[in-house]
Amino acid sequence: MIVALDHIAIAVPDLEKSIKRFMEDFGLNYEGTEHIESAKTSTAFFPLPPTSIELVHPLNDEGPVKKYLDKKGGGLHHLCFRTDDIEADIARLKEKGYEFLSDEPAIGAHDCKVIFIHPKSCDGVLIELNQPQTS
Amino acid sequence: MIVALDHIAIAVPDLEKSIKRFMEDFGLNYEGTEHIESAKTSTAFFPLPPTSIELVHPLNDEGPVKKYLDKKGGGLHHLCFRTDDIEADIARLKEKGYEFLSDEPAIGAHDCKVIFIHPKSCDGVLIELNQPQTS
Repeated sequence: MIVALDHIAIAVPDLEKSIKRFMEDFGLNYEGTEHIESAKTSTAFFPLPPTSIELVHPLNDEGPVKKYLDKKGGGLHHLCFRTDDIEADIARLKEKGYEFLSDEPAIGAHDCKVIFIHPKSCDGVLIELNQPQTS
Repeated sequence: MIVALDHIAIAVPDLEKSIKRFMEDFGLNYEGTEHIESAKTSTAFFPLPPTSIELVHPLNDEGPVKKYLDKKGGGLHHLCFRTDDIEADIARLKEKGYEFLSDEPAIGAHDCKVIFIHPKSCDGVLIELNQPQTS
């Protein structure tokens, strides 16, 4: 079951510049930057409890965020719902016809199990589901 | 000062279908639909306290959301930060070089004072600031 809006992600071409923007101009708290090797993405989180703003940027100038930036130059990238049972939600949504970008969850930021629903299944919006491994 | 992520908005081509999706498939609570004549937009809110998902759809088949859908077909549209002093934040951000879509706040959904920052000022992201008139 979906229990919260975990975060929304913004793809940014210049991570340091955008971290500065969200800290200094918008006054948000900067939690730190995490490099997700499996997703070829660097992420910077700004908690607005219980949700967060996440900046995403290509790690080593490659990967899906690099493709997004090459095409769109930056912008709102995805939203993430927190679930309390990711496997059950995947099965339930597949049954309803939703397509996913992978067959199984991977380990993403904050050491969570994560999976992405294909944007074509949801009005062009890339939706992530995540669940902490400890829950 | 920005105090919260008030909502994120998704532009949808079929409002009823998307309301059904977020209620039935994602299990969110549907608060209701509000027609914002000044913005030529219909909005449907799904509270995930203290934030919300907002679906936006053209009112009377015209306006800025209509233009967005004609170009992009649907997708993440904007995010909205709640501020406790919208006039002070507008002045502060203008001083830093941010451009806004209007000179003054208008009245938007939930009877809030609202204003939008131009996407070119923020990595292609349309950012709304809002403040309840009672605060």
